[in-house]
Amino acid sequence: MKTYLDCIPCFMKQALRAGRISGMDESGVKQLLDEVGCMIRDLPLESTPPVTGDLIYGKIRQMTGVNDPYNEIKKETIREALELYPELKNIVRKSDNRMLTAAKIAIAGNVIDLGVGNDFNITRDVHAILNQEFAILHFEEFLESLNKAESVLYLGDNAGESVFDKLLIEELGKPVTYVVRDIPVINDVTMEDAIDSGLDTVAEIISSGSSAPAIIPGLCSDEFLDRFESAEMIISKGQGNYEGLSNVERPIFVLLKAKCQVIANDLGVDTGDIILATPRELNRHQ
Amino acid sequence: MKTYLDCIPCFMKQALRAGRISGMDESGVKQLLDEVGCMIRDLPLESTPPVTGDLIYGKIRQMTGVNDPYNEIKKETIREALELYPELKNIVRKSDNRMLTAAKIAIAGNVIDLGVGNDFNITRDVHAILNQEFAILHFEEFLESLNKAESVLYLGDNAGESVFDKLLIEELGKPVTYVVRDIPVINDVTMEDAIDSGLDTVAEIISSGSSAPAIIPGLCSDEFLDRFESAEMIISKGQGNYEGLSNVERPIFVLLKAKCQVIANDLGVDTGDIILATPRELNRHQ
Repeated sequence: MKTYLDCIPCFMKQALRAGRISGMDESGVKQLLDEVGCMIRDLPLESTPPVTGDLIYGKIRQMTGVNDPYNEIKKETIREALELYPELKNIVRKSDNRMLTAAKIAIAGNVIDLGVGNDFNITRDVHAILNQEFAILHFEEFLESLNKAESVLYLGDNAGESVFDKLLIEELGKPVTYVVRDIPVINDVTMEDAIDSGLDTVAEIISSGSSAPAIIPGLCSDEFLDRFESAEMIISKGQGNYEGLSNVERPIFVLLKAKCQVIANDLGVDTGDIILATPRELNRHQ
Repeated sequence: MKTYLDCIPCFMKQALRAGRISGMDESGVKQLLDEVGCMIRDLPLESTPPVTGDLIYGKIRQMTGVNDPYNEIKKETIREALELYPELKNIVRKSDNRMLTAAKIAIAGNVIDLGVGNDFNITRDVHAILNQEFAILHFEEFLESLNKAESVLYLGDNAGESVFDKLLIEELGKPVTYVVRDIPVINDVTMEDAIDSGLDTVAEIISSGSSAPAIIPGLCSDEFLDRFESAEMIISKGQGNYEGLSNVERPIFVLLKAKCQVIANDLGVDTGDIILATPRELNRHQ
């Protein structure tokens, strides 16, 4: 997905929030906004939003010297999600459609996003999403693809959400490779976070090889790209990964909650909607 | 009120919206955002937000050559407000407290703000505000000041809202001077808009002498400042005027709806709250 002009004020907002969370004082944050403001000129709109995000969060790391400002927040959300895990596992067990319920829960975890900056309350939000209908649901295609695939490549998004991903992975019934960011960026899931979430007990965990807050094939390692190119089924979590992959021709299923108007418009849904969709079907229908 | 860092992403959003409304194509709007992005570096945070707004909207005028992009929208909102006028006049007539009801209606008109960019629906919003309690209400002080004053200086805010101001002016029972922006900026009320709203039948209309979307004493004409300095009672409508005047020692009463988090925090209220307050009392209580 290209960067829309509407993303630009949002980049400024993200820089503001990230600067503050990194512990910069107000004059430091102002300098950061000065720098990011001047970076706008060099932003090619053909790039996807997370490519720009990569530049901005790189600038923040450089200016603050803080590599993982969201570290404590990530640990806290993983802890909260792990506390919810037994209750959610029970909901999946009792469900008439375990796979669909687990998919919904995995999407519910996607509210834990400190990039977009919406308020969230994991417990409240997960129960709300369990009662929400999908705005787009390519579930038959999902099951068919899963049935044919020998293994699944699962692209993680945020730390904490990773615990909810575990519930879906446990239902897939196929060997899963879980992909994490190479270094900390926003509250995105890293190797350490994935292990803290218990994902090492249900999946092989690999790095994308990139610091971008999304899977941008051009920025990933060759090792990841080999896996990506040969994957029979890819589950892509969240907005960032969708932004990076919406035009990539691979057997991808996108699981996300549309948290901003730009993504909602791009998908033809409303803000707050949840989708389980394959971009190939989306393109065919649009 | 100083410019908060939180205002900076909002400036970018305002530039985006104003560029589009001015009829710029997307590449023109991108150039505008490039320029505004680089202006951030030169923004002194000690300035009030509307001083920065003045610079940004000046840049938009310069880049587009369009002096009044909001002209048609302003005419439409004035027309809509005039249609509501008889019904609202009736509500004031039947009210137990005509002055307070008229003040509420004047504040309800303050939702017509194309700077902040919230959605509004005049008919729906005015009825909602009629049922809303004030978060801050210095009504006794207001009546006392009005009682003592020989005349009132009324600082207008937006076009359309100006029709609602007429209802309050009709209740004041004192000669009123209504102040408009010197040239069109956002959808703020100008001389022409004030006349279209029927204000010339109930008040003398004068210009602030400034293009800023607020009363910033340092930017106003000497003619206006003479009136401002000698005014016995000043009614200031809306966020912009509050931002410009919150630290000015004059007998000011602020009537506004808090439409953004920054203003709400500055006033110690919640977003969506309505207030009729004298900053002197606010300072004493804080």
